[in-house]
Amino acid sequence: MSFDTLLYAHSGGVTAVINATAAAVIEAARAHPGRIGRVLAAHRGIGGILREALIDTGALDAAALTRLARTPGGAFGSCRFDLPREEGGTVMNRLFDVFDAHQVGWLLYNGGNGSMDAVARLQAEARRRGHPLQCIGVPKTVDNDIVGTDCCPGFGSAAKYLATSMLEAGLDIASMVGARGSVFVMEVMGRNTGWLAAATALAAGGDPDRPPHIVLVPEVAFDEDAFLARVRAVTERLGYCAITVSEGIRRADGGLIMEKSRDPRGYVQLGGAGSAVARMILERLGYKHHWAIPDYLQRAGGHWLSVVDREQAMAVGRAAVELALAGRGGTMPAIRRLQDAPYRWDLAPIETAPIANLERALPAGFVAADRLHVTAAACDYIRPLIAGEFVQPTRDGLPDYSPFDLPQVERRLPEWEG
Amino acid sequence: MSFDTLLYAHSGGVTAVINATAAAVIEAARAHPGRIGRVLAAHRGIGGILREALIDTGALDAAALTRLARTPGGAFGSCRFDLPREEGGTVMNRLFDVFDAHQVGWLLYNGGNGSMDAVARLQAEARRRGHPLQCIGVPKTVDNDIVGTDCCPGFGSAAKYLATSMLEAGLDIASMVGARGSVFVMEVMGRNTGWLAAATALAAGGDPDRPPHIVLVPEVAFDEDAFLARVRAVTERLGYCAITVSEGIRRADGGLIMEKSRDPRGYVQLGGAGSAVARMILERLGYKHHWAIPDYLQRAGGHWLSVVDREQAMAVGRAAVELALAGRGGTMPAIRRLQDAPYRWDLAPIETAPIANLERALPAGFVAADRLHVTAAACDYIRPLIAGEFVQPTRDGLPDYSPFDLPQVERRLPEWEG
Repeated sequence: MSFDTLLYAHSGGVTAVINATAAAVIEAARAHPGRIGRVLAAHRGIGGILREALIDTGALDAAALTRLARTPGGAFGSCRFDLPREEGGTVMNRLFDVFDAHQVGWLLYNGGNGSMDAVARLQAEARRRGHPLQCIGVPKTVDNDIVGTDCCPGFGSAAKYLATSMLEAGLDIASMVGARGSVFVMEVMGRNTGWLAAATALAAGGDPDRPPHIVLVPEVAFDEDAFLARVRAVTERLGYCAITVSEGIRRADGGLIMEKSRDPRGYVQLGGAGSAVARMILERLGYKHHWAIPDYLQRAGGHWLSVVDREQAMAVGRAAVELALAGRGGTMPAIRRLQDAPYRWDLAPIETAPIANLERALPAGFVAADRLHVTAAACDYIRPLIAGEFVQPTRDGLPDYSPFDLPQVERRLPEWEG
Repeated sequence: MSFDTLLYAHSGGVTAVINATAAAVIEAARAHPGRIGRVLAAHRGIGGILREALIDTGALDAAALTRLARTPGGAFGSCRFDLPREEGGTVMNRLFDVFDAHQVGWLLYNGGNGSMDAVARLQAEARRRGHPLQCIGVPKTVDNDIVGTDCCPGFGSAAKYLATSMLEAGLDIASMVGARGSVFVMEVMGRNTGWLAAATALAAGGDPDRPPHIVLVPEVAFDEDAFLARVRAVTERLGYCAITVSEGIRRADGGLIMEKSRDPRGYVQLGGAGSAVARMILERLGYKHHWAIPDYLQRAGGHWLSVVDREQAMAVGRAAVELALAGRGGTMPAIRRLQDAPYRWDLAPIETAPIANLERALPAGFVAADRLHVTAAACDYIRPLIAGEFVQPTRDGLPDYSPFDLPQVERRLPEWEG
């Protein structure tokens, strides 16, 4: 067998630029027609490999690839799936059966911390089996929490979206200042790390009187009294207060901040950190409050992409193809920061095994001493990552995202029973 | 006295283009130096008039006006304030004292239904007093519910923001389809009318398989069983379901759909229609669910303005100045639709007294027969209003919204004790 098929798969939550990585992978692979035969994409991530649901990307012409590179979400579908931890086993056997059946010599796995664990283990398994597979990790996560890379594709665009949202909502609430005091809370993604929350601080431009006045991150324990005292102080000074809350903020005892309610079946969660904090402010301070939950909107904002983020997303895709062809299985192209301003970066491969499943938190120097905001150093780090506005073609006033023709290749194996 | 001062005031909730109206008013007024002496703006709406907190817009040079015309939120501040209903009275007396003290001959009041009531009553009061004031209404509301105008400045940009948001979040959730079924709910503004909810239907482009699959509007009673049956049918067919919910949807008995919980002080509201609907789906169908609440973001999206909306916002401002100078007090420039495609419109004055406090609901022909979506006619109506993308200048990756120099004029009256 020639093992001349390159297989690409999305993994985990998608981003506004994960398709840019996919398009770059496909284009880069096509530049090696002598070595790479077919470029397939898994339908819905690793689950698609198990189900042998593989898309032939040959159906995407140059125009379709250009369109793919600017379309948010994951065109091939993604999934959350953890590789079982035991060596060998039915899942691992099935994956290699599919690799063999379709002569997959290169697997490019585009995901976050958990995916880098899968990359390391698949590569170890290939070596154990004496299989030619080269498995390369391709970084992606709006959470920006992969260790070993200066930043993660997907983060810059989500950061730009959220900083812009805080800036604009801040202008709105500042217009509506009333006698009772007005508070605006925006809940952003980040279960364990505060990178996205920190990004909203860019809206303030270093001015403590401009929104957001408070940024709560999961890296430090939530202190209700200190928080409410600050909300009161800001509101008494300015008439309003704008607050960013990471979804994963916790009290010192580790308990998540969320809205709970007792119903006949016991306590149920009713809302997340944003509404819980807003309610706290209403009940203890009596201020009028609004809260926003951008949810999927923050990681799908293709109409307002960071050009730098999109370029990095494409660059890691191209670099991953080169690493695959160079036999560097088990590695991931990492982004290195060469200079802050003007921003300069390049890529260098790192091994995935040492970084697998780790999570990069905000460094201590990025959280303000009072634990209620982030520092200028955090802003200096994030600022270059949101630079540039990609101009989306539109149709009838909306971004022109049309569906793609994604034919699946014929199955060669019995159905997966897993 | 010469009564050569023109006074402009924002009223009620602000929009992404209310400052465009303000800038157009100021520019148009400056084109009549022989007749209009000063152009003042009330600080925080009618409350600012009562407090005699008046901004001298002469401090804004041409560059500042250009910037004002692209800045979301209300630069002069706004407020919610209903004029007391009795004729005369201390509030009315104070307003006319301020008009006299600052020689206000023209008041341009930029708001929604309630503001048009204020315009009609202020004009009636001026006539009763033999006062020269000409009070002109200037339409504005993201709710698009002013009677007598084809649409309202502010709506088009919010509609564009929400349709784009549903389009993009829809691509995200379609990527993440899982075995359990995934549901996405977006709660949009609209206490009594479903115009903004209807706008999200543009994301589907007429395809029943594309998000949003369901649009719930306040104009029709919420039928939980019919709704859940549709959610199940869509999710079984596609693996996911995307839903737009107006904040003001109600059951047939008039009760709002919201999350309530019993606590020691009785029932308290914990969340709005979006989270209530999401919980209903989780509890009755068992699907994984996410919900988004764009809140202020939807009416402040200056980075993604509708060019048509912005042009109309400026046009009503200019027209209002002309109506004021023509002595057409008590009127409002209304937008008339001359043609759908290509879209053509013009302006014509209408009397505010007959439309005051009325609310324009979605016409019956805009709501689908099954009450779970809107019609092609609704999309045809909204489509031209979201056309065109205004390009915001940016700095460091964010829209360049800098603060304005807004000096207040010297007070001439005793402090307001109201």
